[in-house]
Amino acid sequence: MNKDHPKYRAQYAVIFPNQRSPDDPDGYADTAARMVELVVQQPGCLGFDSARDAQGFGITVSYWDGLESIAGWRDNPEHMAAQVKGRDVWYDHYDLYITKIEHSHFFSRK
Amino acid sequence: MNKDHPKYRAQYAVIFPNQRSPDDPDGYADTAARMVELVVQQPGCLGFDSARDAQGFGITVSYWDGLESIAGWRDNPEHMAAQVKGRDVWYDHYDLYITKIEHSHFFSRK
Repeated sequence: MNKDHPKYRAQYAVIFPNQRSPDDPDGYADTAARMVELVVQQPGCLGFDSARDAQGFGITVSYWDGLESIAGWRDNPEHMAAQVKGRDVWYDHYDLYITKIEHSHFFSRK
Repeated sequence: MNKDHPKYRAQYAVIFPNQRSPDDPDGYADTAARMVELVVQQPGCLGFDSARDAQGFGITVSYWDGLESIAGWRDNPEHMAAQVKGRDVWYDHYDLYITKIEHSHFFSRK
């Protein structure tokens, strides 16, 4: 862990718990990789964390400098197309929480 | 997904991205199961989501009615003992974010 990573200066976090459907794994994987490329170029995006288990349940958290940057990512045209496909094909369900970080701390044993 | 689940009334979310060490998988699994039992009994805990990938990187998000309830869980004696073991043995690194939910939405295809 690098405590100088910009994500540790984030003011906001977007939490995205989601359940993948069994459908279109290749299309999903391609788009997910493209979204990773795009989001880190989005102004105000400070990083993200992501984990998915063997049952297809995943959580992605992205870290942001403010609400305007989060809205900018929501409205990115390529991301908007992915959101439509997500609702139509890739996700059985998801939740989305836009949150303000009030306290944080970090631990590294090494 | 059940939209009547109490977690959908949460005001706060605690985000816990973490990397498991390779050490003590049985002890970790026992304590993790016990923490799940305990946290859902903790006053003000409205639920949680959790995912861990094959590399041992996981994210847990717990949902709360307010900051006092979050502090109550932090100070639960059995949870405090688990936190010490986590830093000594189970986690290579973790981050902890206490966040206020500003906006949320939920999608279910089925």
